[in-house]
Amino acid sequence: MTKTDIAARVYNHTWKLDPIVRSLIDTDFYKLLMLQMIWKLYPDVDATFSLINRTKSVRLAEVIDEKELREQLDHARTLRLSKKEMIWLAGNSFYGRAQIFEPEFLTWLSNFQLPDYELSKRDGQYVLDFHGSWKETTMWEIPALAIINELRSRTALKALGPFTLDVLYARAKAKMWEKVERLRELPDLHISDFGTRRRHSFLWQRWCVEALKEGVPHAFTGTSNVLLAMDSDLEAVGTNAHELPMVAAALAKTDEELGKAPYKVLRDWNRLYGGNLLVVLPDAFGTASFLRNAPEWVADWTGFRPDSAPPIEGGEKIIDWWKKMGRDPRQKLLIFSDGLDVDAIIATYKHFEGRVRMGFGWGTNLTNDFAGCAPTEIHGLNPISIVCKVIEANGRPAVKLSDNPQKATGEPAEVERYLKFFGAEDRVDHEVLV
Amino acid sequence: MTKTDIAARVYNHTWKLDPIVRSLIDTDFYKLLMLQMIWKLYPDVDATFSLINRTKSVRLAEVIDEKELREQLDHARTLRLSKKEMIWLAGNSFYGRAQIFEPEFLTWLSNFQLPDYELSKRDGQYVLDFHGSWKETTMWEIPALAIINELRSRTALKALGPFTLDVLYARAKAKMWEKVERLRELPDLHISDFGTRRRHSFLWQRWCVEALKEGVPHAFTGTSNVLLAMDSDLEAVGTNAHELPMVAAALAKTDEELGKAPYKVLRDWNRLYGGNLLVVLPDAFGTASFLRNAPEWVADWTGFRPDSAPPIEGGEKIIDWWKKMGRDPRQKLLIFSDGLDVDAIIATYKHFEGRVRMGFGWGTNLTNDFAGCAPTEIHGLNPISIVCKVIEANGRPAVKLSDNPQKATGEPAEVERYLKFFGAEDRVDHEVLV
Repeated sequence: MTKTDIAARVYNHTWKLDPIVRSLIDTDFYKLLMLQMIWKLYPDVDATFSLINRTKSVRLAEVIDEKELREQLDHARTLRLSKKEMIWLAGNSFYGRAQIFEPEFLTWLSNFQLPDYELSKRDGQYVLDFHGSWKETTMWEIPALAIINELRSRTALKALGPFTLDVLYARAKAKMWEKVERLRELPDLHISDFGTRRRHSFLWQRWCVEALKEGVPHAFTGTSNVLLAMDSDLEAVGTNAHELPMVAAALAKTDEELGKAPYKVLRDWNRLYGGNLLVVLPDAFGTASFLRNAPEWVADWTGFRPDSAPPIEGGEKIIDWWKKMGRDPRQKLLIFSDGLDVDAIIATYKHFEGRVRMGFGWGTNLTNDFAGCAPTEIHGLNPISIVCKVIEANGRPAVKLSDNPQKATGEPAEVERYLKFFGAEDRVDHEVLV
Repeated sequence: MTKTDIAARVYNHTWKLDPIVRSLIDTDFYKLLMLQMIWKLYPDVDATFSLINRTKSVRLAEVIDEKELREQLDHARTLRLSKKEMIWLAGNSFYGRAQIFEPEFLTWLSNFQLPDYELSKRDGQYVLDFHGSWKETTMWEIPALAIINELRSRTALKALGPFTLDVLYARAKAKMWEKVERLRELPDLHISDFGTRRRHSFLWQRWCVEALKEGVPHAFTGTSNVLLAMDSDLEAVGTNAHELPMVAAALAKTDEELGKAPYKVLRDWNRLYGGNLLVVLPDAFGTASFLRNAPEWVADWTGFRPDSAPPIEGGEKIIDWWKKMGRDPRQKLLIFSDGLDVDAIIATYKHFEGRVRMGFGWGTNLTNDFAGCAPTEIHGLNPISIVCKVIEANGRPAVKLSDNPQKATGEPAEVERYLKFFGAEDRVDHEVLV
């Protein structure tokens, strides 16, 4: 007898929507940490976030159906935190600290809803903006990116038959497991999943996270995805992002305030969190100027996350700086997270082994690497370099310079002004693939 | 809401038996063709079949649980042909011929049941014998081998967790698909599945067959598995096997009859089937003596299946013989089926391209190649060289010499007598892996 579960089959074929984002905590942990700080210190600041597709050759508005995109965005707006999620956020320890979130913040969060969006098309690309209070618009970054990326891969997969899909995922699993086996050769590796925003799909990210949990249990330090951390009993990891110094700089009224902005947000962060969460993201306006002008106390922070310089050069400069400041790099932490693949992880690990503590935040090449997995190349499965950045705060333009000019964002005139102010030392162009 | 199908879950966990053989036509097509000939021409001959594990290092009686083995063998004995199967056997065309099976034979077959078996243990191996009428015992060959092989792989897989199993099959699928892609490079390939007897499991064989159907639709000429041929609308392929000349030789009362035995069965076969089914299996007592003594009409047969000589040397000798007999090899067919892997298929194809028609019967390395797929090597997943051979006919010992002494079977004294009679020219030892 052929066994078909008729109810399941009918259910599967009458879906109105297969939601891409099914929970407000299907987002990166750093968003929640930053959100609490924004809620507390910047409750009245407005900030506009905007989708930026750096892979211009992929004309997203021609690939992704607008109706489907709106349905997914609208569905994300219907989400609220569930009771279980609230209880977990209140009761769990993060980075060894209980009650990292204040009760008043959690009460506010329990009513949180993603704000409205503005969607249009221009030159084959989607213009997707989120206007409003910073403490609301900031929360769109990850779901917006996850929705765009998964809609794109769903479109690419629509043409494939069941057998080809079977082989595709079989190959992707085999490929992922090869990576896991290579990582096993690094005895003191610390690696975590940073792949939510650019994932192929939620289910695939979950599989990859489970693969790391099973394959390198001692090296796998957690996932940035709060939902996966909760469901899989993993550590939620991540600290802060460029939007903090970018908004602080945008709000600066004088050059003096502009110069102090990157350190002001670190001071605020320290007051709020401290401890293991003291990781500096130095490259918003160039790492060289950041280090040159940094106050002494920045050297007391646990570590740095060089996010746009090549990992070995970037790491060396930070180590030099720690030495210059009289600190022992072996007590310090470098977190690498920019476009890592296994080769880069291994090379970086071997380069710095024994000289500094290291952590690796593995993103796109963890959760969206299908190269060579389809029977013939499917361009729609190649990841694109897409971000959702703050572009304006209280009506003033926001800028990111980065150590890699290709990752800079902001109005050209304003970028020019920042470059004059912070300097352009050590900025090196390299191709941004993901 | 987590969706668990409670009924399915309870069903899955209360299985008394997961049958390995679920149909009497889950067997090789050549068994049915031979069966009709035995039923018609040798209805009163008794023949004993016996399991022979040539991979002595694998102590099957220590690997496979006797109770499980008995349950599977007993279950196979409960099977009868279903109405659908009977209708298909009667209504389908095989090798372009309608009604290849006589109505009287099908009537008899509709009541067929596998006969009893004798199972004991000796020196860490199972002694598994099938005594009785040849037309019944012959049908045990394939299910007995499939049961032993699948029980062995099930045992090997018992220790693995769900994640490791997931990766194992993902890798096996990726590996199989690499082979399919390599085969695509051979423009006039004709290949079929001969992998029933040594398959990893039924479900895996089915997946591999579907992979060939999907990946090399023009090259894939069918499967020897009658059930898969029916279910997947493929050609059922296969002609005859060593048991015919082996029994005929065993029954020979004089040296003259012994010498004629290999050709007598071909003559009978020709009378019964003819046409595309005229494929000679020349190596039962050595190909050299077979060709030397063959009557002129053997050169009129469609092709040869050299089954124990290395494919290139074996094929060349048959081509030479066709030329000597004044036949054009380009009109003739060579079917290769001995321990093929993709490298051997490609090398053989390229060697003979344009000089002879070729077919490849792909067995163990198609349906049971898990090398490198488990996280660490699992010896129980490596295929073994196991056969189920006729060892006695009407109380007289049966012998197979083969072109490879390692594939010889029979009592040593009797093998000696056959070697003296047929000669030992051109027999070359090479390791039998599968």
